[in-house]
Amino acid sequence: MVKIGIIGAGKIGKLHTENICYNVPKAEVAAIADPFMTDEIISWANGLGITQCYKDYKKILEDPEIEAVMICSSTNTHAPISIEAIKASKHVFCEKPVDLELEKILEVISAMEGKNLKYQVGFNRRFDHNFKSIRTAVESGKIGDPHILKITSRDPAAPPIEYVKVSGGLFLDMTIHDFDMARYLVNSDVTEIFVQADVLINEEIGKAGDVDTALISMKMENGTLAVIDNSRRAVYGYDQRAEVFGSKGMIATSNDLPSTAVFSGEDGVTGEKPLYFFLERYMNSFKEEINEFVNSIINDTPVPVSVHDGLKSVMIGLAAKKSYKEGRPVKISEIISNEVI
Amino acid sequence: MVKIGIIGAGKIGKLHTENICYNVPKAEVAAIADPFMTDEIISWANGLGITQCYKDYKKILEDPEIEAVMICSSTNTHAPISIEAIKASKHVFCEKPVDLELEKILEVISAMEGKNLKYQVGFNRRFDHNFKSIRTAVESGKIGDPHILKITSRDPAAPPIEYVKVSGGLFLDMTIHDFDMARYLVNSDVTEIFVQADVLINEEIGKAGDVDTALISMKMENGTLAVIDNSRRAVYGYDQRAEVFGSKGMIATSNDLPSTAVFSGEDGVTGEKPLYFFLERYMNSFKEEINEFVNSIINDTPVPVSVHDGLKSVMIGLAAKKSYKEGRPVKISEIISNEVI
Amino acid sequence: MVKIGIIGAGKIGKLHTENICYNVPKAEVAAIADPFMTDEIISWANGLGITQCYKDYKKILEDPEIEAVMICSSTNTHAPISIEAIKASKHVFCEKPVDLELEKILEVISAMEGKNLKYQVGFNRRFDHNFKSIRTAVESGKIGDPHILKITSRDPAAPPIEYVKVSGGLFLDMTIHDFDMARYLVNSDVTEIFVQADVLINEEIGKAGDVDTALISMKMENGTLAVIDNSRRAVYGYDQRAEVFGSKGMIATSNDLPSTAVFSGEDGVTGEKPLYFFLERYMNSFKEEINEFVNSIINDTPVPVSVHDGLKSVMIGLAAKKSYKEGRPVKISEIISNEVI
Amino acid sequence: MVKIGIIGAGKIGKLHTENICYNVPKAEVAAIADPFMTDEIISWANGLGITQCYKDYKKILEDPEIEAVMICSSTNTHAPISIEAIKASKHVFCEKPVDLELEKILEVISAMEGKNLKYQVGFNRRFDHNFKSIRTAVESGKIGDPHILKITSRDPAAPPIEYVKVSGGLFLDMTIHDFDMARYLVNSDVTEIFVQADVLINEEIGKAGDVDTALISMKMENGTLAVIDNSRRAVYGYDQRAEVFGSKGMIATSNDLPSTAVFSGEDGVTGEKPLYFFLERYMNSFKEEINEFVNSIINDTPVPVSVHDGLKSVMIGLAAKKSYKEGRPVKISEIISNEVI
Repeated sequence: MVKIGIIGAGKIGKLHTENICYNVPKAEVAAIADPFMTDEIISWANGLGITQCYKDYKKILEDPEIEAVMICSSTNTHAPISIEAIKASKHVFCEKPVDLELEKILEVISAMEGKNLKYQVGFNRRFDHNFKSIRTAVESGKIGDPHILKITSRDPAAPPIEYVKVSGGLFLDMTIHDFDMARYLVNSDVTEIFVQADVLINEEIGKAGDVDTALISMKMENGTLAVIDNSRRAVYGYDQRAEVFGSKGMIATSNDLPSTAVFSGEDGVTGEKPLYFFLERYMNSFKEEINEFVNSIINDTPVPVSVHDGLKSVMIGLAAKKSYKEGRPVKISEIISNEVI
Repeated sequence: MVKIGIIGAGKIGKLHTENICYNVPKAEVAAIADPFMTDEIISWANGLGITQCYKDYKKILEDPEIEAVMICSSTNTHAPISIEAIKASKHVFCEKPVDLELEKILEVISAMEGKNLKYQVGFNRRFDHNFKSIRTAVESGKIGDPHILKITSRDPAAPPIEYVKVSGGLFLDMTIHDFDMARYLVNSDVTEIFVQADVLINEEIGKAGDVDTALISMKMENGTLAVIDNSRRAVYGYDQRAEVFGSKGMIATSNDLPSTAVFSGEDGVTGEKPLYFFLERYMNSFKEEINEFVNSIINDTPVPVSVHDGLKSVMIGLAAKKSYKEGRPVKISEIISNEVI
Repeated sequence: MVKIGIIGAGKIGKLHTENICYNVPKAEVAAIADPFMTDEIISWANGLGITQCYKDYKKILEDPEIEAVMICSSTNTHAPISIEAIKASKHVFCEKPVDLELEKILEVISAMEGKNLKYQVGFNRRFDHNFKSIRTAVESGKIGDPHILKITSRDPAAPPIEYVKVSGGLFLDMTIHDFDMARYLVNSDVTEIFVQADVLINEEIGKAGDVDTALISMKMENGTLAVIDNSRRAVYGYDQRAEVFGSKGMIATSNDLPSTAVFSGEDGVTGEKPLYFFLERYMNSFKEEINEFVNSIINDTPVPVSVHDGLKSVMIGLAAKKSYKEGRPVKISEIISNEVI
Repeated sequence: MVKIGIIGAGKIGKLHTENICYNVPKAEVAAIADPFMTDEIISWANGLGITQCYKDYKKILEDPEIEAVMICSSTNTHAPISIEAIKASKHVFCEKPVDLELEKILEVISAMEGKNLKYQVGFNRRFDHNFKSIRTAVESGKIGDPHILKITSRDPAAPPIEYVKVSGGLFLDMTIHDFDMARYLVNSDVTEIFVQADVLINEEIGKAGDVDTALISMKMENGTLAVIDNSRRAVYGYDQRAEVFGSKGMIATSNDLPSTAVFSGEDGVTGEKPLYFFLERYMNSFKEEINEFVNSIINDTPVPVSVHDGLKSVMIGLAAKKSYKEGRPVKISEIISNEVI
């Protein structure tokens, strides 16, 4: 049993905790820390059999029985806590993004050097059954050489403006998942990006310096032409689709639904809307990513999503911002010199 | 060019006439007859280039230039006009059913003996792209031995009560198409039938001695177990589906739609209702059946739907009525002794 | 926490045990009993934190801390163990069927009289997301009065002949789920049944006195005409669909798939086969049924599937056997006099 | 009856001719001209009742009985023949593109000034049932303000290299339909375009100076962000889909299929490939566009696709070429000064 400490008891921290308790047979949660540790959190944790609840995450790092930590705190703390955890010889599972600044991520990478530790980034969508099917088909050669990749990623509702302001912007907050997905699906890196984006949903988002709708074209190293379309608000719910077209055919996925029920009535033939949001849609992928993280620790095998994957998605996000700002295609190599990575 | 005379200028007679003019390159309509020939019909016919419009269909039978007739008059005249036409050495295309009484159909069969004439019955659905796909799959062995056959056949609205009263009842008026379809899809005859039926839509239909909803189980000669479900009113429109399940797989068809457009909105994901009724749904099959009839004449090849097919569907319909009345499974052989046919 | 004892550590007993451990927060497995208790089972149980492993289920019945038992032993023991458990004042969750003989089920019902105990039967499919959607639509009046009900229920592979011989036959072993489903979906009882069935898959099944393919027509008390089609072997996998057609529309469900991925290639457009078999397809329903059982105990509310539901499905199954044997429609009232139930 | 002269008896000229004969009740083909008039063409025309077959199209222009011409000759002759026809006071239906050079199209527009003549361009896809459904939904406000438009347009097979060389290139030959479709679907003009394209299918296409795969991002005047993806070869057939996402929902269309038949077998659940190519897929739209052209003449109403629509699609195509060549987003206003149009 791998003993894990959870750092950050917000929504995602609680989700991971419950998943480990119920769905990760080879791990257990040994402790949980949150600067705003409340009686409610303690009561919830005790109910799960977790007795060690701290305000200070350092207590987790000091506990020699704990082998791994999951960093679920606010984004700006991801990198510094990662480095501390690495120094304390803990394996790290870090929520995305590792940081909004490349330098900070590079510091984490430096800290990892020479350590025999696992560091996994929380790109949970890679573990989704639909997207895995695409990747498998691409890898097996079933679709031949990939030519065109299309990702549709639309949220059911825009986040609160206060969140938008600190989010890092659409590209680093929301599209970052899609950047990672593009790299994953066709197993290749992005080389160039061009962004068209606008404020079409909520003017307040524009006032906060962000956009809410985007169309992003990319060239991949293996020749694939890729497009991502994003919206902060699809009234019919969370729209998460992908399609890869290649020399031997196309593989495409549609949304997961609460049920297959279809009603035929006087007004048409109506099926269900997609599963509401990421908690519903990606429920299984959250379980799966931790299981794989734990397996990597136990078997000393590579993690499925590395800190370099975390780095690259942020690089693409920064290139997207630059493209949008300057109204031109931007090469990823403009963001950081190749020697650095 | 095969010269055809149309007998009966009602809805279906007009449909066939227009199809021959526009969509049957190897035939032309030489004359049209209807006891209620009106100026309106004459004007419509002239517009199509048809100048010979009669009240008396016998004028068509007397015309030596006319090779074939299409009998689109009321059901009770189908058999006698068929016999007259055969005597006049015309090929016959007769709308379904040939007659509601077996004896009358047998008389038609007798009349055909020794004549080198074609006699086709208007089971147009055999020429539908969807059902043809099923038949082709069954014939090719793709689904292996057929085990289960399911036909759903529901009308968008019940006919007027006055029509119901003279229709011969649900089984001979509506299900007759499905009986023929069952025989066509698995290329086998019905041996036994059991009917559960009721008046669930309109009490007036019950008062007229008919039912409006039915579930019909049948055994086929090749072992297939078959079920037909009928309703006189599906609020979402004309529901025409079939499914054949066999030892190597299943082939199933769904409804044809006006377009593939699907709207995703706050209330769900909604596609179009099926094409409204038989004129829309089976438009192409009406063209196709005449083309094949004309080809049979020109090439002296067997017609695709024979008078025996017309006979058998009526036999099954009569067995269905008997099963419903007596509340028990009825063998088709109870309806008519095998020696007769 | 409701303490539960598991009686029978076969496939289904193990499944329920693991579900309680991982997915039923308000219950725990206190003990497990199996006459063939092996080291392997003990080791598996210990891994789940269950330390009490018995050969004799009576030890479970004697344990005053255990409030409820799950009877997962062989069918012929269901009724006697149920009665013992009831006498020991345990709530009972009993796998289906309660017994193959009505008398035995009636004895269980007698034993329950005057006891404030819960008795739930394992018709897990009622808890499936798809079928629940149909029931909800029917109950809400969305489809109006139900007219036609269709259930397709086909297994991916026939069971071993040795199992077939002791199974009670297709109708009591396999269709029994569909009988319960029919009652559940339109919330009404079956009044009459007619069966057409045959041996189309494996002659050995016929030699064992059973059939492997069936088409079952039923009349429901509320007027619905219902049909079930069964096959012991669908080469494309577990086919579990239902459709209810009513005065205001139709609601239908299709199969659940491993993923939504669809491949378009030179040979067509191909999606996934259904989830393989009942463990995959109904995984969530198994969890849900126990959660509801536990809630019924805690809140002293009626169980969602009662012993009477268990009785009725067996009555329908016996009527089905009689219909098949005698080649005629059979009223359910022929099986047992109404006074008895 | 509007008398029409056909100029050019190649594939598309023959198609229009047959459509007028069979499916355009208010028009007739009075004459046909082709510089390579053969006995075969004459025989085919006579079979349709067309007796006037010329080598020289001027004979059509000189015939005072002919009200309208359809220009189906090679692209480089479209503009000059258009101008001659206008001078001869004929209504014109001209195949796309009007010309590959803007100046030539502007000359046609000049020639039209002061004339009460109709000039329609052959963007037949506007008359397709699927795309019409999208336009109708957009116009009715059903999807709210359009935010994102996606068009997938892939051919089943690349044209011969000899054709590629004179085609004007992918953007003016193939994508030009999609440019018009984008304008049609959201009823707005393109303002900016960015192209990523490559030779991924056939090196010979690259050697001919063209590309075979493209991803095209566009901004529309009404704020919509649009993307078109093109491939010269989809092995599964002609892929023609569109999707408009807006503030109130999304409307999307999928491919039309030869039948709805779906086969479930050991290898998956397989439906048909899309209708093979444009002749099959857009058959009805070709009929519809001529009917509307004829109606415009008879009722003196505006044509549904004007010469300005023809101009604009070429402008976008030229901007696409420029974007691809210069690797940057190009404003449509860079192509031609607004004063000119």
